[in-house]
Amino acid sequence: MTPNPLTGLSRLCIHTITTKPWSIEEAMDKYAQIGVGGITVWRQWLDGHNISIVGDQIRERNLEIVSLCRGGFFPAPSPAERKTAIEDNRLAIHEAAQLGAPTIVLVCGAVPGQPLEESRKQIADGIEAVLPLAEEHDIQLAIEPLHPMYADDRSAINSMASANAVCDHIDHPLVGIAADVYHIWWDPDLEAQITEAGEKDRLFAFHICDWMTPTTDLLNDRGLMGEGCIDIPGIRAMVEAAGFDGYNEVEIFSDRWWKSDPDEFLLAIREAYLTHS
Amino acid sequence: MTPNPLTGLSRLCIHTITTKPWSIEEAMDKYAQIGVGGITVWRQWLDGHNISIVGDQIRERNLEIVSLCRGGFFPAPSPAERKTAIEDNRLAIHEAAQLGAPTIVLVCGAVPGQPLEESRKQIADGIEAVLPLAEEHDIQLAIEPLHPMYADDRSAINSMASANAVCDHIDHPLVGIAADVYHIWWDPDLEAQITEAGEKDRLFAFHICDWMTPTTDLLNDRGLMGEGCIDIPGIRAMVEAAGFDGYNEVEIFSDRWWKSDPDEFLLAIREAYLTHS
Repeated sequence: MTPNPLTGLSRLCIHTITTKPWSIEEAMDKYAQIGVGGITVWRQWLDGHNISIVGDQIRERNLEIVSLCRGGFFPAPSPAERKTAIEDNRLAIHEAAQLGAPTIVLVCGAVPGQPLEESRKQIADGIEAVLPLAEEHDIQLAIEPLHPMYADDRSAINSMASANAVCDHIDHPLVGIAADVYHIWWDPDLEAQITEAGEKDRLFAFHICDWMTPTTDLLNDRGLMGEGCIDIPGIRAMVEAAGFDGYNEVEIFSDRWWKSDPDEFLLAIREAYLTHS
Repeated sequence: MTPNPLTGLSRLCIHTITTKPWSIEEAMDKYAQIGVGGITVWRQWLDGHNISIVGDQIRERNLEIVSLCRGGFFPAPSPAERKTAIEDNRLAIHEAAQLGAPTIVLVCGAVPGQPLEESRKQIADGIEAVLPLAEEHDIQLAIEPLHPMYADDRSAINSMASANAVCDHIDHPLVGIAADVYHIWWDPDLEAQITEAGEKDRLFAFHICDWMTPTTDLLNDRGLMGEGCIDIPGIRAMVEAAGFDGYNEVEIFSDRWWKSDPDEFLLAIREAYLTHS
C-alpha cells in the first residue's frame, strides 16, 4: 500500500512533549513560524495558565489543537484511588473543553502484579464513568494501545485488538483509538485491526516516531522518523486506507533529542516528516 | 487455575547463562550439589570442550540435559548470510546430538528495517532447511516467541499465536515452541494459544523469570521469580493444563544478579522456585 503524498506541513502536528525544552508559548510560536498545522498539548504545559486564553493564542497562530494529552491511568488497587483517577480524568475533560481540544488521549494504566484482565475491566469502568461529562462537552476519548513493554505499570491495553475490544465493550461514538506506530508496529494483526477500527469510525488519532536499534531506555529513547526500523509510510497507508484523514502527530520522547538545540530539532522534524513519514 | 505443587527440585532446570560467572564444570557441579533436576546448556559454555564428554559429565551428576541454547537468527538481507545462518543451525544440531540434548531453543531472528512478514518467511524457510538433519538426529526445534520489544533485531516471532502460525505452516512433529513467561505474560490471548500448542503436542519447553518494574535495560534486567509482576504460577498452570509436564527452566539475564555471589544466587533461585513459581 502507498500512503498519500505529504506535500506540505498542513497535516503535521507536534506534541509539546516532543520539544520538551519549550514552554507552551515558545512551542506555539515556533511551530506556527515554520507552518506546522497542528499541536497536541500535554497537560503539564498548561500548569499555571489560563487554559481558555492558551487555546485562543494557539488558534490565533492558525494552529489546530488536535488533542490534549493525557488522561487515563484508571486501574488502582483501591476504590478510593480509582475514584481519584476518575476525578482526574473529569478534570482533563474540563481542560480539553477550555482549551478547545476535541480529543483526549488515554494512557489507560496498569498496576504491577494486578491481573491485566482486572486492569482492563477497571479501564472500561473508568471510561464509562467519565463518558457523561465527555458527552456534555463533546470530547472524544482516544485509547492509546501501549507497547507490551509497558504492560506492567502503564497500560493493560497493549495491541490494537485489545483497544478494539474495549471500544466494542463500551460501544460509544466518543470512545475510539489513538494509534501510535511505536506501540503497534510489530503486530502481525496490525492491518486487520486498523481496518476494523476504521470501519467502526474509531480511528481518532495517529502518532509517529521511530524505534531505535538498539533501544537504550524503555521510555525515552524513541527515534525521529527515519532513524529506526518502523515502516511509517506503510502504517500511514493502512490508517489512510481505513479512512483516517487527520493529523500525523509527532510524539518523540528522547533524552538524546531533548538535549539538542530545539530549533534544530524542529527543522529535523520537518525534514524527517516530509521524507520518512 | 492452580498449578501442580512444587514439592522439590526435580522439575527445576537452570540455564547456564543464569549463573553466568560459572564455567560449564562449575555449573553442573553446583546445580547437582543442591539437587537441581536439569540443565540447559548455552553453546558458548561448550567452546573449547569435547561436547560428548561434557554430556557424559552432566549425566554422571544425575542432571538431565533439557535443551541446547540457542539456534535461530535465520533472517538476513542476503542469501549468502541466510545460508551461513542455516549452516550454524546445522552445527547446533550436531552439537545437540553430541551433547545428548533432545531440544534446541530457537531465537528466530529479525533484521531492522526488513518487513517482519519477510523475516517470518525466512525463519520458516530456515527451519525447513535444517529439518532433515534434525530428523536424522531426532532433535526437537523449539521456536521461542520473543517479547515484541525484540522485534527489531532478535525475533520476528513475538507471540504464541505467531509461533503457532509458523508451526502450523511447517507442520512437523519436531517443530514446536519454547514458552517463556517473560516474553508472553502480557498477551490477552495467552491461555488460548497455550491450549492450542498443547493440543498440537508442540509445547517443548517452559522458561521462567520475572518482569521488573521499572525495567532498566531491555536485555539484562530480568528478575528472579517473585521479584516482578508476572503471575508465574498462573502461566505454569496454563501450560500444565495443556499437557506440559517437562522442566521449569530458570533463564535469567541480569547484570544485577550476575554481579552477586553465584552461590548465593543459586540458593535464591532454589527459594524463589519453591515459593514463587
